[in-house]
Amino acid sequence: MPLVEITLRKGRSPQQLRAIGDAVHDALIAQANVPADDRFQIFHEVEPHALIAHPTYGGVNRSDDLVIVRITLNAGRTLEIKKKLYADIVARMGIRPDDVLISLVEVTKENWSFGNGVATYG
Amino acid sequence: MPLVEITLRKGRSPQQLRAIGDAVHDALIAQANVPADDRFQIFHEVEPHALIAHPTYGGVNRSDDLVIVRITLNAGRTLEIKKKLYADIVARMGIRPDDVLISLVEVTKENWSFGNGVATYG
Amino acid sequence: MPLVEITLRKGRSPQQLRAIGDAVHDALIAQANVPADDRFQIFHEVEPHALIAHPTYGGVNRSDDLVIVRITLNAGRTLEIKKKLYADIVARMGIRPDDVLISLVEVTKENWSFGNGVATYG
Repeated sequence: MPLVEITLRKGRSPQQLRAIGDAVHDALIAQANVPADDRFQIFHEVEPHALIAHPTYGGVNRSDDLVIVRITLNAGRTLEIKKKLYADIVARMGIRPDDVLISLVEVTKENWSFGNGVATYG
Repeated sequence: MPLVEITLRKGRSPQQLRAIGDAVHDALIAQANVPADDRFQIFHEVEPHALIAHPTYGGVNRSDDLVIVRITLNAGRTLEIKKKLYADIVARMGIRPDDVLISLVEVTKENWSFGNGVATYG
Repeated sequence: MPLVEITLRKGRSPQQLRAIGDAVHDALIAQANVPADDRFQIFHEVEPHALIAHPTYGGVNRSDDLVIVRITLNAGRTLEIKKKLYADIVARMGIRPDDVLISLVEVTKENWSFGNGVATYG
């Protein structure tokens, strides 16, 4: 059920993208009770001018290697779980921790159909 | 008011994209009380490596023809309506039902401006 | 904290995109209490066939110059603030007011990590 959208500047290889996706997915499995086969990820590789990010907001030192991870997932994760999820995504990603930005959008479990036109968790 | 984002791998023609968009919009009209002229759709055609989707999660047989339909819409639709919406999108789309993934994000009606800087439903 | 996604048809220069982004950000600062250094914007420049928008829904006269502004931000802004935000984005953007479509998605403040794997507002 998490639907993950990863936005970053062009220039990484497909293998590097896959590794970034692996890190996000493995952290979701480890910290947020997501099944291993529940993996759905979209990558947006954008031109430099198409991504504007302040270099220091939030007390970090952000570079052009920034990875923006947006996760749409079911509501119900506690703050404690979210904190562990953020930390684990960064720990697994293997890039500078300053360059990982994460945004969660929570929805109700009725809001998903993973095929065949049925409400998967409805 | 629904804002629809459709993500799929490159390779379909503009006509095929239009037909996929038609299916989603016609189902929204038929099942979710959306006006016929309330159509706003963005298509993301991505490289194969930029879309990762598990082939069987949710008990389906997913292929590279996967279409991910994300709909941002006002809250208030019942589970019954959502179920009918999912089924109708798939019925109208004319592709394998296994290959249609739908994700809803619900918002409040105050959250839209369809032009002129006014809150359309505010 | 606002994460802004701006979708429009290809054809504008990077300078024009920057000006559109400036307008959104300056309105967020002026109307929605967003810090000046809290700027994160993604631009999607799409082919003409990849953006379908009804020409008159909402009582406006929409053209191919349409700019769709999606803002993910913390919940808590009143309708009054949202109205001022919509009006100010349009006022600052310098394009036809009919061609500015705005969609807000509200989240809880626990849902952000702006780097280092920490919950920025948690």
